[in-house]
Amino acid sequence: MLPHLKPGGEGLRTRLFQIIFESDTPMAKGFDIVLMALILASVAVVMLDSVPVWHAAYGPVFYWAEWGFTIVFTIELAVRVYCLERPWLYLKSFYGIVDILAILPTWLLLVIPGAQSLVMVRILRVLRIFRVLRLMQFVGEGRLLVEALKRSSHQILLFLFTVFMLVTIFGSLVYLIEPDDAGFTSIPRAVYWGIVTLTTVGYGDITPVTPLGQFVSMAVMLLGYSIIAVPTGVFSAEVIRSIRADRYSDEACPGCGYDRHEHKARYCLRCGTWLDEDTPDPRTQQDDAPDAEET
Amino acid sequence: MLPHLKPGGEGLRTRLFQIIFESDTPMAKGFDIVLMALILASVAVVMLDSVPVWHAAYGPVFYWAEWGFTIVFTIELAVRVYCLERPWLYLKSFYGIVDILAILPTWLLLVIPGAQSLVMVRILRVLRIFRVLRLMQFVGEGRLLVEALKRSSHQILLFLFTVFMLVTIFGSLVYLIEPDDAGFTSIPRAVYWGIVTLTTVGYGDITPVTPLGQFVSMAVMLLGYSIIAVPTGVFSAEVIRSIRADRYSDEACPGCGYDRHEHKARYCLRCGTWLDEDTPDPRTQQDDAPDAEET
Amino acid sequence: MLPHLKPGGEGLRTRLFQIIFESDTPMAKGFDIVLMALILASVAVVMLDSVPVWHAAYGPVFYWAEWGFTIVFTIELAVRVYCLERPWLYLKSFYGIVDILAILPTWLLLVIPGAQSLVMVRILRVLRIFRVLRLMQFVGEGRLLVEALKRSSHQILLFLFTVFMLVTIFGSLVYLIEPDDAGFTSIPRAVYWGIVTLTTVGYGDITPVTPLGQFVSMAVMLLGYSIIAVPTGVFSAEVIRSIRADRYSDEACPGCGYDRHEHKARYCLRCGTWLDEDTPDPRTQQDDAPDAEET
Amino acid sequence: MLPHLKPGGEGLRTRLFQIIFESDTPMAKGFDIVLMALILASVAVVMLDSVPVWHAAYGPVFYWAEWGFTIVFTIELAVRVYCLERPWLYLKSFYGIVDILAILPTWLLLVIPGAQSLVMVRILRVLRIFRVLRLMQFVGEGRLLVEALKRSSHQILLFLFTVFMLVTIFGSLVYLIEPDDAGFTSIPRAVYWGIVTLTTVGYGDITPVTPLGQFVSMAVMLLGYSIIAVPTGVFSAEVIRSIRADRYSDEACPGCGYDRHEHKARYCLRCGTWLDEDTPDPRTQQDDAPDAEET
Repeated sequence: MLPHLKPGGEGLRTRLFQIIFESDTPMAKGFDIVLMALILASVAVVMLDSVPVWHAAYGPVFYWAEWGFTIVFTIELAVRVYCLERPWLYLKSFYGIVDILAILPTWLLLVIPGAQSLVMVRILRVLRIFRVLRLMQFVGEGRLLVEALKRSSHQILLFLFTVFMLVTIFGSLVYLIEPDDAGFTSIPRAVYWGIVTLTTVGYGDITPVTPLGQFVSMAVMLLGYSIIAVPTGVFSAEVIRSIRADRYSDEACPGCGYDRHEHKARYCLRCGTWLDEDTPDPRTQQDDAPDAEET
Repeated sequence: MLPHLKPGGEGLRTRLFQIIFESDTPMAKGFDIVLMALILASVAVVMLDSVPVWHAAYGPVFYWAEWGFTIVFTIELAVRVYCLERPWLYLKSFYGIVDILAILPTWLLLVIPGAQSLVMVRILRVLRIFRVLRLMQFVGEGRLLVEALKRSSHQILLFLFTVFMLVTIFGSLVYLIEPDDAGFTSIPRAVYWGIVTLTTVGYGDITPVTPLGQFVSMAVMLLGYSIIAVPTGVFSAEVIRSIRADRYSDEACPGCGYDRHEHKARYCLRCGTWLDEDTPDPRTQQDDAPDAEET
Repeated sequence: MLPHLKPGGEGLRTRLFQIIFESDTPMAKGFDIVLMALILASVAVVMLDSVPVWHAAYGPVFYWAEWGFTIVFTIELAVRVYCLERPWLYLKSFYGIVDILAILPTWLLLVIPGAQSLVMVRILRVLRIFRVLRLMQFVGEGRLLVEALKRSSHQILLFLFTVFMLVTIFGSLVYLIEPDDAGFTSIPRAVYWGIVTLTTVGYGDITPVTPLGQFVSMAVMLLGYSIIAVPTGVFSAEVIRSIRADRYSDEACPGCGYDRHEHKARYCLRCGTWLDEDTPDPRTQQDDAPDAEET
Repeated sequence: MLPHLKPGGEGLRTRLFQIIFESDTPMAKGFDIVLMALILASVAVVMLDSVPVWHAAYGPVFYWAEWGFTIVFTIELAVRVYCLERPWLYLKSFYGIVDILAILPTWLLLVIPGAQSLVMVRILRVLRIFRVLRLMQFVGEGRLLVEALKRSSHQILLFLFTVFMLVTIFGSLVYLIEPDDAGFTSIPRAVYWGIVTLTTVGYGDITPVTPLGQFVSMAVMLLGYSIIAVPTGVFSAEVIRSIRADRYSDEACPGCGYDRHEHKARYCLRCGTWLDEDTPDPRTQQDDAPDAEET
């Protein structure tokens, strides 16, 4: 999936490369499905192990399952590295880093033993769940969406910055208006309230109690309700634009170089050059069939 | 409404078929309206019966009404089966299964009596409400929407998967950050909190209490507030595309095979062939009526 | 604003009609602004009077202000009726009914005195606020939006019906899953919870407590988060369509009757008839300037 | 950034003007980045100082940092004023007022000393955060969005007014239905509840408890869930329109004055006039190079 990845050498390594990194043979597809199932199972084990009741009942099972998954994923990573021409290129890529982070926490348990570190390791263990990101590889469909997101990302970032600015100002305002016991104990907390309100999440853990505070809140709510239109509008426009872009061929006219003809175009719309190189230009046969031109 | 359904035989069965399965005669329209009213009434009875105060006051009335509806719907299903050529085709279809599920729970009360089973039957009884799905039959308008949904379903599923992935990662993160007494007692519960937050529902039954947890929450809220743009943008584009597609005929040009002419087109835009086969091409009459071209 | 309204007779009645029902003279504009201010002031008085602190302090002031507004609006309605040719046409229209409802509650206080009726009158009094609807008259801009809403209303109603059906099924499901003390005491209450959740309002007054209930809730939330795309997409498409429709003139071609030409079109795109009737067709001057045709 | 601003005089003032008000030289870009960092740091200090724990630990540090920022921003404002030809024009502009408001609260502490004023000053101090608005200057990208917002602002205001009207009516209705101890103690509070519900924020601090009240709430929620489509649809259409408008040049044809040609157009689509004035019209060279036409 990464265009710059190449198998290192012939024979076994090339075959392993085709199974692991490509997905057009039945073998490679089978590998993908098994790997996907293993990733989901390992995430499920981490999740269930965190539920006190399940941990009490099946703790040891989860522990050994965790080790099993870690060993399998470690072997898988070793094979990936083995069959590549330039393994570092993969290890430094996003998926390589995720692969390493997915197995590191469990192995670190061996190197850094002791009671205190256990809590710390729990933090790293959660990174395990990044393994799920691997699933993204299996879905090629999302490319169009990701592209539209990328093109609108600049405007959406600007939108998020504006949101943050508005929330800072309104949060500070409500912080001054509301008494401390309403939950607005500091500006950062008031900003948190502002985001909860503007994004229309509305937990209700901090709510204004004074009429003036409620009045400002209403302004924030209506603002949040209205400006949701901005990212939606920008992204809708991008998706529509990318659908429309599909209508245009990107081959340049051999006559004048113009390169935004519709797929159905047969003559260049600027200089009139015949575009379809596989069939002869009907105009050159003009003398044989002059009435065709007349229509 | 199901294109493969055919009446079995002549006479009474054909007439019943036209009343029950079609809706172009006044009789059939009357049947549809009566059935719709019965379905809504039966759902209302199940709902009201679940309210303790109403159950205490009108329990027996609801009980016999329930039996009345069940008998009527059973007769209706019997007639449907009777007038069809191949009843199994209907019974195996979505609407057939819903029809059976809608009457089964009440009949099961007879077969499996006893105090304990009453609670169990309540579960089955709720399926009764699937009867409402039948109403879908009466609305033909939704077809366009359903089609646009189908075409965008692939991208929306991908979007939901991404949402679930993000929620798993962020939920685990907040599970590690927040103390247990804030409600984040396990990763699945933290994922539940993540969905409550990302979809901007925001119950407030579980909320972060630490500054770091609130900071991560703010990221989740802003994410949820922004990426709502994705399904909306995709679906908007699909609806606009389907409106635009309406502008184009899908009949191929008899001359060159090009098949994306606007409905108003009279000549093929590629080869100039006359497209409207019902009327003669004015060009062939050019010599007889040259002034027609001049207007 | 209502096209069928006509002044009754000449002189004073016509002049009053122009002031009250039209808005192109300075006098009529002044009347509109004064009326708008009076309506907003009367609504403000009703609202402030409902606040206990304000009622205690200014109760009598509000009482007489209320009577003042009622008398002014009654006189205004009388004048409206006086200057119309067919007053009943207006009184039966939407704005006529709103006008009557806006003054009725206060007058009813005289006819039906007594302590008990006071509470009842409070209900009617709120209808007073419908007076605000009158403000709609002053805003002509909304016509485009209302039209787009009307054209998409059929699909949005269908959408709302689907939402209600889904909420009924999911609500019943959660009603069966959750224990009664979680707040799911009846199916209607569970449906209320379903709407609170699906629309992403999320009060948090009723929340699922069992893992299974939370799992179903997550499905409802994700559903609500995704299908918001439907009304948004439908309405976006309608607005874009109405903007595009602006591009087309609705004047029919005098040659063939085709009526969807762009405003910039000068020749009929079907039969080639010259469309701009104010200037001569350059083709009729063809003999004088043959090179113009050649470009 | 403000087109009417001009440096006052030559030499130093012009050079300072270029650094402070423009951003095309490396020096000016450096100044912008340093200023942006200072603004963010000063906002961070005000925010952290409001957290009780941080104030107790670092109160004096924050106090002197505050004074440091205030002096730096005061000098900056003085230099701005010094290098302008007409300083009042800047001071009366939006950014000028924000600049003054950003430094005023701290200076006022000197003029109006005393314990009582401290609380008052806290209110003014928050205005300090308006400094963040200055950051807007650095982002030129948002212009397109702001323009689309401006064009749709009229319709969005109308939408907000409709929302407010609906909320007033529904709020009053629920105020009458619900008992006072449910939180609906006055119509303004009920309107606050209405906005919390319609915008799908849903704090849950005031919720209906009667079945009828919950029924009306459901209507408000579904309304809020549906009409969010209005601002989104309007804004989407505006963004799409502005992207499309980009395709058209606004230069009028020298022949007929038509001014909606696509950028790629070389001949006027109405009268055939050659539009590109920098290069000669190929048609005038037709006799010299007839094969150019043939390509």
